[in-house]
Amino acid sequence: MEEKLQVAGFQAGAVKAGIRGKDRLDVALIYSEVPAAAAGVFTTSKVKAAPVLLDMEYLRDGKAQAIIVNSGIANACTGKPGMELALGTSRLVAAQLGLADDLVLVASTGVIGQQLDLAIFSNCMPPLAESLRKDGFSDVARAMMTTDTVPKTARREVELAGRKITILGLAKGSGMIMPNMATMLSFIVTDAAVHASVLQEMLGQSVAQSFNAITVDGDTSTNDTVLLLANGKAGNAEICSLDSADGRLFRQCLDDLCLDLALQIVKDGEGATKFITVHVKGAVSRQEADQAARTVANSSLVKTAFFGEDANWGRIIAALGRAGIDVDPDRVDISFDEVMMVRDGLGLGPEQEKLATSVLKQKAFAVVIDLKTGQSEAKVYTCDLSLDYIRINADYRS
Amino acid sequence: MEEKLQVAGFQAGAVKAGIRGKDRLDVALIYSEVPAAAAGVFTTSKVKAAPVLLDMEYLRDGKAQAIIVNSGIANACTGKPGMELALGTSRLVAAQLGLADDLVLVASTGVIGQQLDLAIFSNCMPPLAESLRKDGFSDVARAMMTTDTVPKTARREVELAGRKITILGLAKGSGMIMPNMATMLSFIVTDAAVHASVLQEMLGQSVAQSFNAITVDGDTSTNDTVLLLANGKAGNAEICSLDSADGRLFRQCLDDLCLDLALQIVKDGEGATKFITVHVKGAVSRQEADQAARTVANSSLVKTAFFGEDANWGRIIAALGRAGIDVDPDRVDISFDEVMMVRDGLGLGPEQEKLATSVLKQKAFAVVIDLKTGQSEAKVYTCDLSLDYIRINADYRS
Repeated sequence: MEEKLQVAGFQAGAVKAGIRGKDRLDVALIYSEVPAAAAGVFTTSKVKAAPVLLDMEYLRDGKAQAIIVNSGIANACTGKPGMELALGTSRLVAAQLGLADDLVLVASTGVIGQQLDLAIFSNCMPPLAESLRKDGFSDVARAMMTTDTVPKTARREVELAGRKITILGLAKGSGMIMPNMATMLSFIVTDAAVHASVLQEMLGQSVAQSFNAITVDGDTSTNDTVLLLANGKAGNAEICSLDSADGRLFRQCLDDLCLDLALQIVKDGEGATKFITVHVKGAVSRQEADQAARTVANSSLVKTAFFGEDANWGRIIAALGRAGIDVDPDRVDISFDEVMMVRDGLGLGPEQEKLATSVLKQKAFAVVIDLKTGQSEAKVYTCDLSLDYIRINADYRS
Repeated sequence: MEEKLQVAGFQAGAVKAGIRGKDRLDVALIYSEVPAAAAGVFTTSKVKAAPVLLDMEYLRDGKAQAIIVNSGIANACTGKPGMELALGTSRLVAAQLGLADDLVLVASTGVIGQQLDLAIFSNCMPPLAESLRKDGFSDVARAMMTTDTVPKTARREVELAGRKITILGLAKGSGMIMPNMATMLSFIVTDAAVHASVLQEMLGQSVAQSFNAITVDGDTSTNDTVLLLANGKAGNAEICSLDSADGRLFRQCLDDLCLDLALQIVKDGEGATKFITVHVKGAVSRQEADQAARTVANSSLVKTAFFGEDANWGRIIAALGRAGIDVDPDRVDISFDEVMMVRDGLGLGPEQEKLATSVLKQKAFAVVIDLKTGQSEAKVYTCDLSLDYIRINADYRS
């Protein structure tokens, strides 16, 4: 599997810089041999980490050639020194690789409110550049990890008018729940040729249905970042429209890869014992369907019931009631996988509950809610709220 | 203490009707000897339990004379049979006491989605009426309990132009977190004479700063109800304006009583080990201050850090960032009680953190957040998110 984690014209590598202890990869670099079209989607939080602010600025021209990432410290809530550190880190990489400053993007994940020392990056710069190789992406995936238990990678191939193109993605996120870790990072590289503005639009759409459709506790981090670099090395005719045949194929492939990575994050959620798809149908709009699914998926009561394998549909109805959407409690249907538990707002009794409980004993299941007020639907992916969530996040410092 | 739980012209009592097992008070009655001015504040959930819908209808004329309450089953998500049950219960009390139907309000708390049998109420009607006595309010407080560990009562007196008036309040709510219990009920009775429209306005304002300013996990129940009956037996000149001297005194007294009851609920929160006041200052509006405080108070990450006695201010900043309010991360100050931990968005270092940690070791403390963008402030009261919260709410049915 690992030997496949390559894309034409990209190199990657990682080093142990000592930010997360002595013996862990914690600084990594992704490098495109040529300038690449680049797109980014960032946290919606009003409190954005320094690297997020820098990348937003640097991506205005839709071009990038390298991404440097560190784990251990998020460089968030660090004021001017933090911004200078991000800028300085970018410059070190640019100087090392002989690139313009604004072609080097920066990402950080880890503890909020601590400062990083630029010396850490200047010291590790030569070995980091030396570590670059075609098959270095699995090292990058490991270097990005904070409380993740597994590295998260995905890879897709598709033919565009006879040319095989590859998309490779890395992600980190220990369930979006994060101790004081500033949460989710994903880097995606492809050898496809895609116009930067199309790339940005595609990434925005893919993220909406993948990374933005997962939730563990509704907390949004200061550092959430998805970056996508397309260097055109596959030699396909540049994709200049979402609606072209190639555009649609590429988009499908990107959607699929993003969802794959996003679900890996939920499944690795801290303390998670269940993977749950909340599927809301029959809403008056996509936005209301999403809002309803999100409210159910973020309800501590609902999530704790799932941990307890308790088919407690009253909590689901209660969450729908406060979701701020158009809901007629006397029409709602609720199923767990194929087992209908509630029809027209009324429970179907102990026999159905017994069946529903057996669905909940599975590691993964779907809650299907039909509001029967319209035609729109949405899915949100989440995990349960377990004793280990509290244990991990209470983070006893003694 | 208990002998004081009386108000002129009111009687109360409770019986064991078998809804919550054989040996627990579970149906209770409050009765005013004369028709009283009445006000109510109800859940904002779109999914309202049958008794809530009935009371909203019955309170249109601003009058009531009795309240019947049961615990064990919430009569929520019960469709037409549920509404007929609520109506039938009201009628049974009206017939028993010789009142017009619409003078009898109904409240229920307990499991969502189960039907109640009217026979339970008809069977207990004669003993319930016989149980009525001046000092029966402590029995009512006990009969309302679900997973509450203590009954919740409060009492205030104030002189209005030489006349002593009394306000007595009862509440239940095991932390607003509720297994499948449909959450919070409070009944308040007073012998003051207050015009119904003034009473309603006062109650709305008091509830905003008390019952609506507490949160455990952001879940809003289908049954939340606060009812206030004023029978005028104290003989004071009827309060016809909020801005009169008597109006202000009464309002102050009511505010104080409501906050007392609300805080009793938070402190009895399921699994709660800490009582936390989230105080946001310097916001551009009261609404934004409230929203910021509420987002911090509902963050699972923040609440779990408090359980772990971890002065993790990064989580507080992250919550502010996603609160949808006007926030400049470089200006925020954060203190735990008197210990400043963050100034202008930057942490004040390990010495301050040590002091802040000792604040967090207390049973009760305040988190004070100064946004420094305006003059408005708000307080929200909450508890921590503990291992016992999960244990209680996972509700293993085996």
